[in-house]
Amino acid sequence: MKELIVATRNAGKLKEISRLCKEHGIVVLGLERFPELPEIEEDGESFAANAIKKAGFVTKETGLPCLADDSGLVVDALGGRPGIHSARYAGDNADDSANNRKLILAMQNVPDDRRQAAFCCVMAFSRPDSEPLLFEGQISGTILREPRGDGGFGYDPLFFIPEYGLTMAQLPLSKKNRISHRGQALMKVIETLGSLSF
Amino acid sequence: MKELIVATRNAGKLKEISRLCKEHGIVVLGLERFPELPEIEEDGESFAANAIKKAGFVTKETGLPCLADDSGLVVDALGGRPGIHSARYAGDNADDSANNRKLILAMQNVPDDRRQAAFCCVMAFSRPDSEPLLFEGQISGTILREPRGDGGFGYDPLFFIPEYGLTMAQLPLSKKNRISHRGQALMKVIETLGSLSF
Repeated sequence: MKELIVATRNAGKLKEISRLCKEHGIVVLGLERFPELPEIEEDGESFAANAIKKAGFVTKETGLPCLADDSGLVVDALGGRPGIHSARYAGDNADDSANNRKLILAMQNVPDDRRQAAFCCVMAFSRPDSEPLLFEGQISGTILREPRGDGGFGYDPLFFIPEYGLTMAQLPLSKKNRISHRGQALMKVIETLGSLSF
Repeated sequence: MKELIVATRNAGKLKEISRLCKEHGIVVLGLERFPELPEIEEDGESFAANAIKKAGFVTKETGLPCLADDSGLVVDALGGRPGIHSARYAGDNADDSANNRKLILAMQNVPDDRRQAAFCCVMAFSRPDSEPLLFEGQISGTILREPRGDGGFGYDPLFFIPEYGLTMAQLPLSKKNRISHRGQALMKVIETLGSLSF
């Protein structure tokens, strides 16, 4: 039986990953099973650096394979910000609503045709004595001037997907899980892990 | 004109990378041009983690694209060691000769048919506001019981390539630069950077 630690403190994320892994015969262990592991500082300069650091650290400490991710919102007109700082855009203890307000403000003078953005996710899979594998997912959209919808979390209510005519916060969860940056990265992970021995 | 910092303190490595880049219209700047940059600690759990960390740090500090690498010797019978610790296998200030002696000793009871190893190299290319790109190179061989040849550096004299009937330290430099783990990774880098705008 394949066993895998998923390095997230986000219960929703853990649940979604567990469900997909289970379908492929992989048992997912949450970080709560390893209370002795310290919080891992996400101080890298990229999503990939943070994901690799988290996965590598957990594997080193536990001896078990680990899947870790880092993701965020990359806004063209803001030179890629908030990017790796998405969760703490409005300050170290900022909540979603403060981050969204800051984004609305930062974009208030950006015209309608220059509001392109992307949600990006990088997942890193590590095993003992092996180089990590990286998987990326991305979804393109535009940044609205005010929130729409109350599903999802983070910047979802401001992230409009022209193809669906809805924000990420208006999509049904099953749909979001399939098309989102995280969903796409995860699909690539599952494809690979299904055929990898670990 | 494309400009690129190469994050290495190894003069031979810098020279080889500069030569290949120049052929493709890319100007290489060495780290000696940036004396204010501190030494970057290679404390990652994988070659990829170290390469990404170095490249990302230099790009953040200078605002310029950067190519960094990490590489080492991965020995099957030693569970992948010395791996990311290749340069300091015999201790923090170990030289090539001490590292080689330690490897000979660690492998003395390993039979001839179980001495497989690989030199592995991961290069990371970073630009401002972008995720890093990763490039890998690898060459397979076996570990000898005593050194042969006096070219190259590191574990080259112990690394025998059956295909050529020579150790890495016996290969002419031009040949080594082409087939080595670093040469292969670099070739992939050059192919990509030639068509990338930065």
